[in-house]
Amino acid sequence: MHSLQFTAESSSDGMVERDFTMGGVPGVLWSPSSGADRAPLVLMGHGGGAHKKHPAMVGRARLLVTGCGFHAAVIDAPGHGDRPRTAHDEQEIAELRKAQAAGGPEGPIVVRYNARLAELAVPEWQVTLDALQELPEIGSDGPVGYVGIGLGTAIGVSLVAVEPRITAAAFGPHWPDVLAEKAKQITVPVEFAMQWDDERIPREAGLALFDAFASKEKTLHANAGKHMEMPRFEADSAVRFLARHLGRAVASPA
Amino acid sequence: MHSLQFTAESSSDGMVERDFTMGGVPGVLWSPSSGADRAPLVLMGHGGGAHKKHPAMVGRARLLVTGCGFHAAVIDAPGHGDRPRTAHDEQEIAELRKAQAAGGPEGPIVVRYNARLAELAVPEWQVTLDALQELPEIGSDGPVGYVGIGLGTAIGVSLVAVEPRITAAAFGPHWPDVLAEKAKQITVPVEFAMQWDDERIPREAGLALFDAFASKEKTLHANAGKHMEMPRFEADSAVRFLARHLGRAVASPA
Repeated sequence: MHSLQFTAESSSDGMVERDFTMGGVPGVLWSPSSGADRAPLVLMGHGGGAHKKHPAMVGRARLLVTGCGFHAAVIDAPGHGDRPRTAHDEQEIAELRKAQAAGGPEGPIVVRYNARLAELAVPEWQVTLDALQELPEIGSDGPVGYVGIGLGTAIGVSLVAVEPRITAAAFGPHWPDVLAEKAKQITVPVEFAMQWDDERIPREAGLALFDAFASKEKTLHANAGKHMEMPRFEADSAVRFLARHLGRAVASPA
Repeated sequence: MHSLQFTAESSSDGMVERDFTMGGVPGVLWSPSSGADRAPLVLMGHGGGAHKKHPAMVGRARLLVTGCGFHAAVIDAPGHGDRPRTAHDEQEIAELRKAQAAGGPEGPIVVRYNARLAELAVPEWQVTLDALQELPEIGSDGPVGYVGIGLGTAIGVSLVAVEPRITAAAFGPHWPDVLAEKAKQITVPVEFAMQWDDERIPREAGLALFDAFASKEKTLHANAGKHMEMPRFEADSAVRFLARHLGRAVASPA
């Protein structure tokens, strides 16, 4: 049985950042400098081609940690960040680049590749969550949420579908193929953000994924604009959503 | 030329409430007890069968006035609140009740009736806005927003389409018939809330109205649940949206 090893620690503006590895998977845990004891934990999933300390992750961590007093954790997805790429990763990425260069449909490749990454990442997240809950400042009885974008949605939907410890989840846009069946197993509150004029994921596909969630409480946020133009206030909104469901008020308006 | 007459004034918890009439139309203006000078103004539209002091209006007024330091004004729609019903009002309401009792489609009646009410209400709002902007505590150069639900959406979309002084608008669910053409003339930022499982307004109809807005900045919020089950946090969200666009921060998290 592996246990979580901290490898580096730094601190700035009320937030402690601790790098860790768990069974060879590199991750980072952000916590409040004070008052972190038994605070809620939010697991975060980065987008495809990004990594655990991408600005989208650090930005959300800051809102969660200093705005809500929560812990926030990310692990590098397989083949991402500080993790080596396999031959399979290289091959899928090459196919994706080729499709993008040719203006061909990238959806089928992303869907297939992300499904494979999610399959690998779900058990990694589960043992990481076990280990994080063994830390005295987190504990095993506190609320756990999830927020993810892109690939982080593919991994998150797969994870939340099978992981009863996660009680609220905020997802970003993704194709419904593969994921819709898993979304039908999710009953916890969900906030789902998509882009109304997404040139990569058809509007109907985005709406279909939202529709698939079995959650009695679910909210769709659709913003005018293309795939990469999601407004920054959606990050604030996802954090507000998690704060509402994990039980602490947002300390300052976003 | 008519001018605005205040008919009653009261005050509680940092909010001043002044009833007024403008050309025979009764309205109410809520303002902060202090610091109201030249504050942004939000016009609000109540739902069908409701009136200017319906809890949905008073609640939003409180968020706008004490949370943002804004002014908020509502007028009774034609045939609503303190205004007399005409024979036409009585006839349409009777037809609506009959359709509802028979489980028949109410949409065509509501669409037709609301379109007529909007036709009457738009010029009433325009002279009321003229008069409100003559008040020294409001002034003619400050930002103006709109928030409406149901009938208040039918009136609001019609008003914002022709009224350049309104620079941001939050609308609730409505059928797109009649309104979609007007929505196509609206280019200011819009936040639009609908219910995903609305048993009265079909999902596609709600999405079609959102799609029609020509605004470069527009956000759809769709929540699981039936027509009358819109979550209360959507009122907070509409206020946050208006605060973002009319230029003042929300004083406390909602």
